[in-house]
Amino acid sequence: METLIKEPTTRNAKNTFNMIIESAINLFYKNGYHGTTVNNITQEAGIAAGTFYLYFPSKLSLYKHILIMFSHNIRRTIAANVAEKVTRYEKEREGLKSFIMLAKENPQMYNIIWESLYIDRALFKDYYESFAKRYIKGLNNSVKREEIRALDTEVVSYILMGVANFIGLKVVLDLGDNNDDIEHIVDVYMDLIKHGLFQ
Amino acid sequence: METLIKEPTTRNAKNTFNMIIESAINLFYKNGYHGTTVNNITQEAGIAAGTFYLYFPSKLSLYKHILIMFSHNIRRTIAANVAEKVTRYEKEREGLKSFIMLAKENPQMYNIIWESLYIDRALFKDYYESFAKRYIKGLNNSVKREEIRALDTEVVSYILMGVANFIGLKVVLDLGDNNDDIEHIVDVYMDLIKHGLFQ
Repeated sequence: METLIKEPTTRNAKNTFNMIIESAINLFYKNGYHGTTVNNITQEAGIAAGTFYLYFPSKLSLYKHILIMFSHNIRRTIAANVAEKVTRYEKEREGLKSFIMLAKENPQMYNIIWESLYIDRALFKDYYESFAKRYIKGLNNSVKREEIRALDTEVVSYILMGVANFIGLKVVLDLGDNNDDIEHIVDVYMDLIKHGLFQ
Repeated sequence: METLIKEPTTRNAKNTFNMIIESAINLFYKNGYHGTTVNNITQEAGIAAGTFYLYFPSKLSLYKHILIMFSHNIRRTIAANVAEKVTRYEKEREGLKSFIMLAKENPQMYNIIWESLYIDRALFKDYYESFAKRYIKGLNNSVKREEIRALDTEVVSYILMGVANFIGLKVVLDLGDNNDDIEHIVDVYMDLIKHGLFQ
């Protein structure tokens, strides 16, 4: 967490804080991080320019805050849905489905997370490495329970993150066909990782 | 192909043309597309500012030209390596390996291709949709030859592109471990798509 951010305590301050964040998300999505100034954000939020700095020392600190928000939101949503499932098979299916639904409902999320590669490569690296760490933990537990095969779970975590990201991208940007039928997409994925690709 | 680009005919012109492209690739990688001006490019290339416009009408047309170059290069390299292999299994292994090697040798490629999402979303969409089309064709042929199972090859193409992209990214940005042992990474992938994930 960015230590220099001043988290608001009163209800008014919280409203302003949230309005800054919401405006920034819309503008970063529409015009990109580099195409958005602090002035654009305060104008969009309808607040005085100086008010921004009561909460965030810079545009970058606001961006980092949003990145952490998204990351927590993704983890929390997937974890809550996956927790209801028992087997690794069901957990894997629910995990992918939750991620796609979340991406579809928040198309800005994708753009803003990936843009970290063009803002500070270390942010992108941290983001996916910390995501992978949790994924690996879950996979290792499933290996112990003999639910999945004892493959290198570190490599597997990046393989499965890649699938989730590209399938999410396909749905969000409507690449190719089938993008309204998420159950079908998830079924193809499960079929593939259950029975393999080859005859 | 961007029709407004003036392809050079003399050797001197070709040298200048290539120097502009090489300088642009380095600067786009270092400072991003939005952080690079035409002036930066001509300075880096050591040519007069006006010379740029003898070849490219704009920074965007140069970017599009580079994107097409990368796309052709990736396809040509993978196709050449894959052509030597006989079975779909060997083709799939060689395809992933070639892609990772190419990404490792050209770390700018990744950054510049993905940045299209922040330059013009339609470019990104076109890039992956046209890549998918060729992938689907190859997969459909393998289904006909009964080498792979009759899954929805459109969805499968995005799944496998996602894997290649994230594994490539892992190696290029050195995310997590194992990134020097590309044979191992490719083996884990092949094991996964041959035998599936589950026990």
